[in-house]
Amino acid sequence: MARPTPLSGFPELLPEQRLVEQQVIDVLRTTFELHGFAGIETRAVEPIDQLLRKGDTSKEVYLLRRLHEESAEGHSGIGLHFDLTVPFARYVLENAGRLEFPFRRYQVQKVWRGERPQDGRYREFTQADIDVVGRDELPFHHDVEVTRVMVDALRRLSDPATLGLPGFRLQVNNRKLIQGFYAGLGVAEGHQTDEVMRLVDKLDKLPAEKVHELLLSEAAIEAPTADRVLALATIRAEVADGEQGFVQRVRDLGVEHRLLDEGLDELATLVRSVADLTSEQVRVVADLSIARGLDYYTGTVFETRLDGYESLGSICSGGRYDSLATDGRTTYPGVGISLGVSRVLVPLIARTGLAADRKVPSAVLVALTDEESRPASESVAGALRARGIPCEVAPTAAKFGKQIRYAERRGIPYVWFPQAEGPGQVKDIRTGEQVEADPATWSPPTRDLRPQVSHA
Amino acid sequence: MARPTPLSGFPELLPEQRLVEQQVIDVLRTTFELHGFAGIETRAVEPIDQLLRKGDTSKEVYLLRRLHEESAEGHSGIGLHFDLTVPFARYVLENAGRLEFPFRRYQVQKVWRGERPQDGRYREFTQADIDVVGRDELPFHHDVEVTRVMVDALRRLSDPATLGLPGFRLQVNNRKLIQGFYAGLGVAEGHQTDEVMRLVDKLDKLPAEKVHELLLSEAAIEAPTADRVLALATIRAEVADGEQGFVQRVRDLGVEHRLLDEGLDELATLVRSVADLTSEQVRVVADLSIARGLDYYTGTVFETRLDGYESLGSICSGGRYDSLATDGRTTYPGVGISLGVSRVLVPLIARTGLAADRKVPSAVLVALTDEESRPASESVAGALRARGIPCEVAPTAAKFGKQIRYAERRGIPYVWFPQAEGPGQVKDIRTGEQVEADPATWSPPTRDLRPQVSHA
Repeated sequence: MARPTPLSGFPELLPEQRLVEQQVIDVLRTTFELHGFAGIETRAVEPIDQLLRKGDTSKEVYLLRRLHEESAEGHSGIGLHFDLTVPFARYVLENAGRLEFPFRRYQVQKVWRGERPQDGRYREFTQADIDVVGRDELPFHHDVEVTRVMVDALRRLSDPATLGLPGFRLQVNNRKLIQGFYAGLGVAEGHQTDEVMRLVDKLDKLPAEKVHELLLSEAAIEAPTADRVLALATIRAEVADGEQGFVQRVRDLGVEHRLLDEGLDELATLVRSVADLTSEQVRVVADLSIARGLDYYTGTVFETRLDGYESLGSICSGGRYDSLATDGRTTYPGVGISLGVSRVLVPLIARTGLAADRKVPSAVLVALTDEESRPASESVAGALRARGIPCEVAPTAAKFGKQIRYAERRGIPYVWFPQAEGPGQVKDIRTGEQVEADPATWSPPTRDLRPQVSHA
Repeated sequence: MARPTPLSGFPELLPEQRLVEQQVIDVLRTTFELHGFAGIETRAVEPIDQLLRKGDTSKEVYLLRRLHEESAEGHSGIGLHFDLTVPFARYVLENAGRLEFPFRRYQVQKVWRGERPQDGRYREFTQADIDVVGRDELPFHHDVEVTRVMVDALRRLSDPATLGLPGFRLQVNNRKLIQGFYAGLGVAEGHQTDEVMRLVDKLDKLPAEKVHELLLSEAAIEAPTADRVLALATIRAEVADGEQGFVQRVRDLGVEHRLLDEGLDELATLVRSVADLTSEQVRVVADLSIARGLDYYTGTVFETRLDGYESLGSICSGGRYDSLATDGRTTYPGVGISLGVSRVLVPLIARTGLAADRKVPSAVLVALTDEESRPASESVAGALRARGIPCEVAPTAAKFGKQIRYAERRGIPYVWFPQAEGPGQVKDIRTGEQVEADPATWSPPTRDLRPQVSHA
């Protein structure tokens, strides 16, 4: 077999890079579980009619075909999931009688999209989703809850003392606010409102004057209305209250509508309720241009930018949906956020050399004096492992200098030299310091116990 | 959407069942890392020609087709991997220049096979693989190493104090021993040896006399040869040495061959070297009937039975391959074992009701006096989480009795009652005991911190 080459759009990591991804997933899982979210996994496949339910084929679904399949359609009727929301909605309906509501779940899994690979877009990638789902109703305080949980997780990921990822800017808005504002301006519900939202969404690509023009020509609204639509979309604020707060600035636009009041009140509550968790590293900004396109969100909406990597687009998005799922009799409203784990990590690894400081979990290499004494070295390793210290025994009884270089190449910080009589010696190969030590009591400093993430 | 029904062959777990699977995977990961194995993941797909390289289409590969694909073949040229060995071999070749050898890796991932679903066989299932791979050479002591690592992992899984899975019986043999024995008997190398192995493999389904008959009629060997072939295959022993040991019993059959000596010596070394780890729960048995069919193994071979679930067949298999991969110039020998995580857990869950004692990670439900005091309850929850105690705040300010039942239904052991002044009170709802407590210092007993696995 000739040397194989990578498949475009299917990123793979080296062991020292996978250690970073694993630590990110560990931090997410720990945070989600501290907040009472239960982890589930769903199967990788769904019936094709479910994957294409909304007639939306833009997700570029991968259909599955068995090798010997002779069906007329040329597939098995199943395809790979392209997100974790469609399978989760199906899981909730399928297991509704066995779940307790409100149901909090997290889910970290791979998803697949057959789209053209490009920067930050992959054909296989890992997402980490949290959602809270209610039966028939789900109070607004759960919107605050999922925001707090994700902000807590992002804080831990960007903590310089641990993983040290770049900072995050969570952008929040509320669909009721936008829809109420438009309704108060006299924009017709339905098609005209959708058109206005679609055009406002272009503000990050087109200049405001151009969008203004399009609002007149394509959405058929009057110039003063377009002025106020654009004035709303330019409001950005990290606080709800006071002169710089977004509440007053929206009020100043002079539009009145019950739905606007409701949405503005929700957004203000959300921003006030997460203020104690925000910092320079993780900011929460009310950004009144965010609408999440024509998605199924009905209240709170989220997008997130990674500091210094704004070209990746939103790497953590979500919102409130009044009907995540329904079986006709019961409706399950939900609110959730999805973090693009691969979307953040793969470019960071490629551009910054982000990796663990070891290629292996071992904190100690137990040296080997000669092949006959392998059981003695194994016994030292066993004593260290029994106390939770990852280690490995040297593969051959080469000269000690060579064994030390073996450890160095892998980033293993300590080499243990067993001795025929009495305790052994352990050497920190970074400093050269060597001390007598007993495998039943010696421990490395906590920092050396596990691989640490380093920025090359 | 009507209530969806499960897809046959794609098992999914409820949250309290997924907690068991997650704990099993955590135990495996911890054990593998303690032994210095690095975790990697490979993409879910491989080029179809690699998946079908050995002309073996029995794995029922799933091919991928993009929705809008119009290729003549009706697929993308890629398919889902059916095991973790083919992708690992490709990963080693692709990254050979960036890996350190001997390379120890573990890999816990889903694999897919389009076969007919039946007991213990799934279309999507999780495997946990460990392998050690060398460049050009890999000393035999790594065969001992992977055995010890997997025995260590199985001991932890079957420990009644933690997960309490049933016991495991690891069956080991050596292909050199069998091939040397057959060669010493005058069985021709190649086709005739393969035929004899194939027929001996039927011993678990057919009576010995029938296999004897087939050895004569289909493998064309003489009756005295068939006698000794069957005599070898019936040897089972937990010790190498002494009268009951397999070494003497093989010798007593009076066959001489260099390869037999080598294989017998390796098998004896293996069994002696794991003796200190075995117990009633995890036994290692030399079983001279095990040959792993016509697979690519060249020395040590493993199979494993789960006590009380023998009908599942081998749930943990592997062995030594002198050429895991080769690029023509360099050969990469390896030795590894693969544990069928789903294959063990899904039947256990179905038949014994194996599940965690909670449906959620929360150890504490923080009660809510009224909606206005939600921030006070959140603040208690925040203080508990800061010290690693998973908790959730009650969703509504219902009567306390109702909030306690909310906790009961989820298996949450503690309910915290915040008080307007001074410390709160915490109630163990299993015993009814209620005490004053400060969220900055109170902790539950370690046993209550995480969900525990219980056997219904």
